[in-house]
Amino acid sequence: MTPLLTGLRVVEVTAFIAAPLGGMTLAQLGADVIRIDPIGGNIDYRRWPLSQQGTSLYWTGLNKAKRSVALALDKPEGKEIARAIITASGENAGFLLTNLPASGWMSYDALSQARPDLIMLRLTGNPDGSSAVDYTVNCASGFPMATGRGDGPVNHVLPAWDVAAGLYLATGLLAAERQRRLTGRGQEVTLSLADVMLATVGNLGYVADVQVNGAVRQPMGNELYGAYGRDFATGDGRRVMVVAISNRQWRALGKATGLADKLAMIGPLMGVDMDDEGGRFQARDAIAAVLAHWFAARGLDEVRAAFDGTGVLWGPYQDFGQLVTEDPRCSTANPLFQEVVQPGVGRHLMPGSPLAFGAVPRGEVRPAPRLGEHTDAVLAELLGLSAAEIGRLHDSGVVAGAVEG
Amino acid sequence: MTPLLTGLRVVEVTAFIAAPLGGMTLAQLGADVIRIDPIGGNIDYRRWPLSQQGTSLYWTGLNKAKRSVALALDKPEGKEIARAIITASGENAGFLLTNLPASGWMSYDALSQARPDLIMLRLTGNPDGSSAVDYTVNCASGFPMATGRGDGPVNHVLPAWDVAAGLYLATGLLAAERQRRLTGRGQEVTLSLADVMLATVGNLGYVADVQVNGAVRQPMGNELYGAYGRDFATGDGRRVMVVAISNRQWRALGKATGLADKLAMIGPLMGVDMDDEGGRFQARDAIAAVLAHWFAARGLDEVRAAFDGTGVLWGPYQDFGQLVTEDPRCSTANPLFQEVVQPGVGRHLMPGSPLAFGAVPRGEVRPAPRLGEHTDAVLAELLGLSAAEIGRLHDSGVVAGAVEG
Repeated sequence: MTPLLTGLRVVEVTAFIAAPLGGMTLAQLGADVIRIDPIGGNIDYRRWPLSQQGTSLYWTGLNKAKRSVALALDKPEGKEIARAIITASGENAGFLLTNLPASGWMSYDALSQARPDLIMLRLTGNPDGSSAVDYTVNCASGFPMATGRGDGPVNHVLPAWDVAAGLYLATGLLAAERQRRLTGRGQEVTLSLADVMLATVGNLGYVADVQVNGAVRQPMGNELYGAYGRDFATGDGRRVMVVAISNRQWRALGKATGLADKLAMIGPLMGVDMDDEGGRFQARDAIAAVLAHWFAARGLDEVRAAFDGTGVLWGPYQDFGQLVTEDPRCSTANPLFQEVVQPGVGRHLMPGSPLAFGAVPRGEVRPAPRLGEHTDAVLAELLGLSAAEIGRLHDSGVVAGAVEG
Repeated sequence: MTPLLTGLRVVEVTAFIAAPLGGMTLAQLGADVIRIDPIGGNIDYRRWPLSQQGTSLYWTGLNKAKRSVALALDKPEGKEIARAIITASGENAGFLLTNLPASGWMSYDALSQARPDLIMLRLTGNPDGSSAVDYTVNCASGFPMATGRGDGPVNHVLPAWDVAAGLYLATGLLAAERQRRLTGRGQEVTLSLADVMLATVGNLGYVADVQVNGAVRQPMGNELYGAYGRDFATGDGRRVMVVAISNRQWRALGKATGLADKLAMIGPLMGVDMDDEGGRFQARDAIAAVLAHWFAARGLDEVRAAFDGTGVLWGPYQDFGQLVTEDPRCSTANPLFQEVVQPGVGRHLMPGSPLAFGAVPRGEVRPAPRLGEHTDAVLAELLGLSAAEIGRLHDSGVVAGAVEG
């Protein structure tokens, strides 16, 4: 059986998180994704954290399963080769993904002259094309001001807008591919990181809440809004998150803790309907007062034993170390992960696509390429260059292959 | 010109954020997305925040541009109608998206008997199919323990895993649709919220950092890791985020603040290479000491005037109210937004898809349906039921239409 997107060929000229993640999402579904970089790497090539050997774990994590071509993009001949790779023939080729300034030779107008059915996805910072990154989009989103306990804005550490933007790019490329297959038409598809943020804020109801209710969500620590949930300290110094949104989950929590009778007293005590998620939200401090003692009297393992299999929605807080060493989902017991040797890094757990397709085996998780690893193969395969021609391009510094180490 | 995914028909039996967002992403690209709910609504139908009229802004935000069918899913005849809608004929139909327990009549095995080329996307909490929600996945991710200043875990307020999962579902559906078009083959596609988290933690290098470096990322407030960036207070009580990752951005910051000479002294002072992002990260406290005075001496408008057009990467912190009322990107000046009347809510700014396709106009942003608004139309159109037959189903409580208000 062949991987899902076999035959689809996508060229990337990208850096950082969002656009590389978009390409990797397609690569891990079987597309041939060729990342073109300047010789020596793009500006994301040495981003921290690094391995002992100096290889970026950030870069290798976001470029798995791709092929790498290194070109002198500052020289006319390097640009010409990049253009030829991007517009090379093939019914399932002619896709470019970029978050770099797409002007001059890399503009849609210039490239689509060579290949009129080109589909080019271009990520910018702001809708007007100006620069922005996850941090400078996030600060404006409202979320940092609603995160934490109200003593100043709190940035998320997960680059959530970048992640969402990368996945929008993958969706957009496949949607445009479908239309091209049906109509033959190529097109430029644009997306801005700020619009990803703005659409999400709107989709989650925050814009309407301001405009129709005049309400601005305030920070409330680790508590849920509009339903019951918060964190608790356990007796052995850990913390857990506990959530009960549906009535079924609420009853499961009362039953598993043995506190159903006490929790039932809170309705009359606080004058709320405890069969309603809004009522439980309103009575959250009283609920927490009852539950806090239960958690404080138990270690994490006792909490786990009491909750597992009961329908209680909960989870332990873990730092990245605890996630990797203690959580069975973060191991090869989970088909998401395989142990893979990453050149320049070593062997470590590597995730494939979280999407599992019933008709296609998950297949091998492939590491990131070494920079320039596929330069020669791509020049031969896509452009039909001979070994002598490729040798000349190396000698003149127009292309580069992978350097060991 | 026709919207991008015109003709594609997707049926949803979903609740909450991730799966509805997956369907809405496709609906806003032009697919006919039919959400089937129990009569009276699914468990997400009344989630806070609500409008004055009691309509959920959460539900309307996540179900824009869909059609709504209400069926008695607890009755055999209601299930039979749902099955018939899901498996109704049509070359571009036969897609089901769900995050509900897909057993019995709604299992892939049962539904694919009626339509062997069915593509069914199923979102679960954990890879083993057990329940989890954004909050209980997030606590385990490592991010809350690396967020804030280290005085306990800090939950994100953005449901980032749900958003990413919704976009993976949209990507997965289009990838499976492509394969079905090429091979005729349907399949079940599964995704778990925990795997979305685990893949992301791995993709961003955190798993490798633990396994090959033994490093566990610690919280560092609003500072960037591995490059320069943090928040500053302005003289008028606002806060801004400032980032300089590339050398170009770093030079722009020095030039725009007039502090380039002072910043250049920090290299020898701290013994780091200030032309390297890692060096600037190491010297971040000294950099902040210099910059803090500059920001404290200026109001937000002065900062804006000094930075706009200079290439400095920055942004103001805004709460949701400030985003909606002060940010020009959150207005109809941005083609992302239109003013739309949402039944049960009123007129407000509503985002379309952040993806802009050059060959297709953005078109009208469509509000969420009223629950059951399209029951009769779908029964007639997809199942060929007569008005008399539809009337009988209403009378016997098997289906329901929209109720005003």
